Amino acid sequence: MDYQMDQGVEILRRTPGTLKALLAGLPNAWTRSAAGPDTWSPNDVVGHLLNGEETDWIARAKIILESGEARPFDAVNRTAMFDKYHGYSLERLLDTFERARYQNLETLDGLRITEEKLAHKGTHPALGTVTLSQLLSTWVVHDLNHIGQIVEGMAHQYAEAVGPWRAYLAILTRPILTE
Amino acid sequence: MDYQMDQGVEILRRTPGTLKALLAGLPNAWTRSAAGPDTWSPNDVVGHLLNGEETDWIARAKIILESGEARPFDAVNRTAMFDKYHGYSLERLLDTFERARYQNLETLDGLRITEEKLAHKGTHPALGTVTLSQLLSTWVVHDLNHIGQIVEGMAHQYAEAVGPWRAYLAILTRPILTE
Repeated sequence: MDYQMDQGVEILRRTPGTLKALLAGLPNAWTRSAAGPDTWSPNDVVGHLLNGEETDWIARAKIILESGEARPFDAVNRTAMFDKYHGYSLERLLDTFERARYQNLETLDGLRITEEKLAHKGTHPALGTVTLSQLLSTWVVHDLNHIGQIVEGMAHQYAEAVGPWRAYLAILTRPILTE
Repeated sequence: MDYQMDQGVEILRRTPGTLKALLAGLPNAWTRSAAGPDTWSPNDVVGHLLNGEETDWIARAKIILESGEARPFDAVNRTAMFDKYHGYSLERLLDTFERARYQNLETLDGLRITEEKLAHKGTHPALGTVTLSQLLSTWVVHDLNHIGQIVEGMAHQYAEAVGPWRAYLAILTRPILTE
């Protein structure tokens, strides 16, 4: 379906609560473990989402609205969370993400984005010309991608424990999400 | 990691709240749409999880504990939800699933499952010999698999809307979960 402001925001505003329902209070065996050497733990993923709130989505939306294609976006560092939030508990990450997302949705609302503005263009440093609509759609899918990554990583903790049922559980047998 | 009762139950008891946080109140455009002809909508998936509570996990655990390998499990119908809950709203499915899961975890607690009981064996109609530990691990991974399926299906609604960012979103480019 096409991106529509209301429908996209419905997902964006639910993500902090979804992550809290899924993760808050879980033992570290679930939240600090990654499925493999190049994959992220649930803790890492929440940090990655938080960094996106602080550096990526709203910053890029403003660049599009203020400068259009003339000013390329700054590159984002998708592994910034390893240094930036080192030592944060999962609860602190979840709370900080929730506040940052809430504030960003307030900011987004204040940008009064119309159908006409959704077609405004910007310049991605690697992908080239993109639209505001594509940026906001990507914000939504990026949330869903990382919720999927979290449940996949957790599922892999039981990859052996399920025994022969492994054959029926696609989450265990297809390629792992690594970003 | 090995299956441990406490750690497994930590996931099982969170799933109803996770699904409510993710889905309750969303417009039908998100919850009634499937990513393709052989895939399930979020609504369908919640129905499938509810049917599992009513027919699968606890029933099979009891068969293992009461009859061991002598009595094979009944086969489960993984598409039973299409008839069984036809006309149910998403809210009704979510509430019914939440109650059924709560009751099943009470029942599980009442089964007083020890390390010794986790090794008890049963007979799966297709997979052959399985253990109670494998059954309970599979219950957990099955939850995570279907949460992943829901977010994947929702992400695919924006597969075109994200434009060139598609290249960075693995949830859109790898094979879709179909069960």
